[in-house]
Amino acid sequence: MKSYNTMSRDELAKEKDALAAAFAAHKAKGLSLNMARGKPGNDQVQMSMPMLDVINSSSNCSAEDGVDCRNYGELTGIADAKKLFSEYMGVLAGEIIIAGSTSLTFMYDCMARAMLTGVLGSDKPWAKEEKVKFLCPVPGYDRHFSICQFLGIEMINIPTSTEGPDMDMIEKLSADDPLIKGMWCVPKYSNPLGITYSDNVMRRLAALKPAAKDFRIFCDNAYAMHEVYRDVPLLNLLAACKEAGNPDMVYLFGSTNKITFPGAGLAFFAASAENIAFTTKQLSMQAIGWDKINMLRHVRFFKDLNGIRALMQKHAGILRPKFDAVLQKMEKELAGLGAGEWIKPNGGYFITFLAQAGCAKRIIGLCKEAGVAMTEAGAPYPYGKDPDDSCIRIAPTFPSLADLGMAMDVFCAAVKLATVERALEQAS
Amino acid sequence: MKSYNTMSRDELAKEKDALAAAFAAHKAKGLSLNMARGKPGNDQVQMSMPMLDVINSSSNCSAEDGVDCRNYGELTGIADAKKLFSEYMGVLAGEIIIAGSTSLTFMYDCMARAMLTGVLGSDKPWAKEEKVKFLCPVPGYDRHFSICQFLGIEMINIPTSTEGPDMDMIEKLSADDPLIKGMWCVPKYSNPLGITYSDNVMRRLAALKPAAKDFRIFCDNAYAMHEVYRDVPLLNLLAACKEAGNPDMVYLFGSTNKITFPGAGLAFFAASAENIAFTTKQLSMQAIGWDKINMLRHVRFFKDLNGIRALMQKHAGILRPKFDAVLQKMEKELAGLGAGEWIKPNGGYFITFLAQAGCAKRIIGLCKEAGVAMTEAGAPYPYGKDPDDSCIRIAPTFPSLADLGMAMDVFCAAVKLATVERALEQAS
Repeated sequence: MKSYNTMSRDELAKEKDALAAAFAAHKAKGLSLNMARGKPGNDQVQMSMPMLDVINSSSNCSAEDGVDCRNYGELTGIADAKKLFSEYMGVLAGEIIIAGSTSLTFMYDCMARAMLTGVLGSDKPWAKEEKVKFLCPVPGYDRHFSICQFLGIEMINIPTSTEGPDMDMIEKLSADDPLIKGMWCVPKYSNPLGITYSDNVMRRLAALKPAAKDFRIFCDNAYAMHEVYRDVPLLNLLAACKEAGNPDMVYLFGSTNKITFPGAGLAFFAASAENIAFTTKQLSMQAIGWDKINMLRHVRFFKDLNGIRALMQKHAGILRPKFDAVLQKMEKELAGLGAGEWIKPNGGYFITFLAQAGCAKRIIGLCKEAGVAMTEAGAPYPYGKDPDDSCIRIAPTFPSLADLGMAMDVFCAAVKLATVERALEQAS
Repeated sequence: MKSYNTMSRDELAKEKDALAAAFAAHKAKGLSLNMARGKPGNDQVQMSMPMLDVINSSSNCSAEDGVDCRNYGELTGIADAKKLFSEYMGVLAGEIIIAGSTSLTFMYDCMARAMLTGVLGSDKPWAKEEKVKFLCPVPGYDRHFSICQFLGIEMINIPTSTEGPDMDMIEKLSADDPLIKGMWCVPKYSNPLGITYSDNVMRRLAALKPAAKDFRIFCDNAYAMHEVYRDVPLLNLLAACKEAGNPDMVYLFGSTNKITFPGAGLAFFAASAENIAFTTKQLSMQAIGWDKINMLRHVRFFKDLNGIRALMQKHAGILRPKFDAVLQKMEKELAGLGAGEWIKPNGGYFITFLAQAGCAKRIIGLCKEAGVAMTEAGAPYPYGKDPDDSCIRIAPTFPSLADLGMAMDVFCAAVKLATVERALEQAS
């Protein structure tokens, strides 16, 4: 197909009429579809149903060290869960806390505690600083940014390439400004780009020399084993930080919410033994402990790391055709049109479409008119502001394959129409 | 027996020698017992084991409105759980959030959020005030006080009678000082006194006219159905606050941690619809939702409020002999000695012993020497400081009846020895 870039004004006008007519036909179908939700499909959660059988009324509910999982105690989690999930997180058993059911809540809690009391090594609570700033690789996870916004932490956009965030910028900014207290990152199959940080990026992160001595990398390894097409190895950031003499600089987060049951999974916090000791002492002011029966349930269901791997391979088998469907539609409908680009991820939960600048809001608005809900434009950026109005996060995991096909037809039609509309505006 | 008060110096000296010898015999037994832990006994948690069967791999995991409890969503909890537990909390279904697994964590979280951002009606975050103060009826729950101490909130002791806290003092202080932002209370079978606030106290609480317009009563109704001897009715504080024109002044907390499984229960936050809406909006920044499978498990296990009542009657049947054992030992060993007083509670988890002033630390120290762990002296007071060094919290729920008998023998012997030692000091 001819690229819109090469079309004359008249050709564009004609094309627009044709595309508008095609789009009206989509609207007339009265669809109600959703590609906004980064949640597992029903067939994925169904695979963990046997986990609900491993603990029942006749079960021994003792952890391996004899702790009764049905009663109070074990603030940082039962030994069995620490053993399995420290391996999952790539840390030692003394470097993990099994922290409730959802990692997002614990990330918020870590940030809130830092604001209220500071972290290990802080001179004062972050909230007592004149201002607190965080570095935010973009596009990124909207809920990370919401936490900062809610707590009044100023966010600084860091552009991201397929290698990871712009390290020159991160090194310079963090070294210069003591009010920059940390950064967010999702280093593997990132939300939404689906990229994995290169070893070089991970080593440079670990070797940062921030002006703030209580700088923390909030590293949300949400998709550690969530491959779709290919397992991409990720350098262990805690190990790298130790090597670089920065053992306390990183907080690692993880969870089984996209492994077993969203909401009813386990959350993990991993860090240096010193960070763990400091955090445990603080946590003892706010918690007695979390659901140990659910910890035991997870451990008995998976048995070992291979148990987790095996389940995640099954998930990949379900997700691959869905990702294929999205990518193939884009290839078929949009390749060569100059109507935007997309990145094929190796894993994770999203596909990012980068529309022509100034088109994302319109595309998403058009989709909405035709009954296809997309993640809000701007959502992957701090303050909901995409400076280029270009980035669109597509979540292919929850809809059925059939729904996904219909939704992508609408999406591609919207992309074409919005791109041509924009080209016409610019031509006039 | 002759009261120590009426003994001469010589009589006391002789008595002390006898008591010291008796105590040495206790120490020689090499016991290892614990009356410090306010946790259910194994036989209590055993009663909830059938709850682990009601959801299994063949279960329909949909809530009554069709929500899939195995996937993301429903930040404030599933409708079924809101229905049952709003009834448990004595509020409407729109006045409750099912907030994770433990109420203490949610109480901390409410306080942390108030400090960071303020509550509904705040002009600014509490942490931006020159200082924040909280009223603390004493003796009270140590973990409430730890939250304040951790967050730098100044605590003011409020004496408590069997009717409840000193309302004259609370009314005056809260009306005079805008930096007093709230108060703690455990209105039913209170920790540790076991008293229940009178209707008059509850009405006066509801009718407070605090100088701080964003004053909040953190009302931890931890023992709503936890009778041991007698169900004592408690006036509904949210209803009373509404009547008094203060609908937003109270936060109610509750939990099933001492009903089903400590750590693996459900936590409840109840308040006016306006507080719920405000809090829900804030929570959406820090959470996607909590474990809905565990909510469904609770609802299907209990079915209705009578299901909870029936279980709590069984708990009472287990706890009564334990409370009896403690009270009878004290009656037998200590009545008439002038060695302290105790309050017979109608429910809850504790029995309070009020030693002669200046004796609590020594009694607890002696118990420790003889292998009987007691709650630390001072723990039921802000900053761990009991001004009279008198209050001792006895937790009879976890030990077996046999252990409890042995532990109480040691305790009573320690009380006698410490009291006589003190009387001798004062006589010299």
